[in-house]
Amino acid sequence: MSDGPRSTGETAGAAVPERLGGLRGSIDNIDAALVHLLAERFKCTQAVGRLKAEHGLPPSDPAREEVQIARLKALAEAAGLDPVFAEKFLAFIIAEVIRHHEDIASEKPGHT
Amino acid sequence: MSDGPRSTGETAGAAVPERLGGLRGSIDNIDAALVHLLAERFKCTQAVGRLKAEHGLPPSDPAREEVQIARLKALAEAAGLDPVFAEKFLAFIIAEVIRHHEDIASEKPGHT
Repeated sequence: MSDGPRSTGETAGAAVPERLGGLRGSIDNIDAALVHLLAERFKCTQAVGRLKAEHGLPPSDPAREEVQIARLKALAEAAGLDPVFAEKFLAFIIAEVIRHHEDIASEKPGHT
Repeated sequence: MSDGPRSTGETAGAAVPERLGGLRGSIDNIDAALVHLLAERFKCTQAVGRLKAEHGLPPSDPAREEVQIARLKALAEAAGLDPVFAEKFLAFIIAEVIRHHEDIASEKPGHT
């Protein structure tokens, strides 16, 4: 007889190392997907950055960011993700994007 | 005649607002996917947190984190994502996970 861990609804009954290993395998798969989506996202934002630099548009766009935050918080809520975390996550990504945009702008021909 | 923005290899020829709108549409689609993957990832880590709390295991696991960081940096490099950013990203997520694990541990029956 086991010492009876409370059922968590996942793989109750399996030994702890197996349950932990199974969950960690899923986390690793999700992380690989996240990395590939982030790579694709930065390809899009780099293209936005080049477009903005070519046309002298400012790297950040507060009105656009406000819409993005509201939309992501609603999506997070529907998906069972803490909306406050979703907002922090977007801020974290956007900070990196703005850094890229500033790099692109400073590399623009004619800029010394 | 347009005033000839330099080709970026994407949708050269289209007007700037259309090009920007197309790229932003892709970014919004990717963000929706990221939010849903993050929701799923936290479901897994919440299950890990419950398992750890039930068995008195510590919330953080530096050996596991070291393996995760090395793996994600390699995946990032292959996908064209800055590995330093990938590491910062994982640290950002793990900080949130540890916060959840500590919350779960402090809610454990018997803990006052």
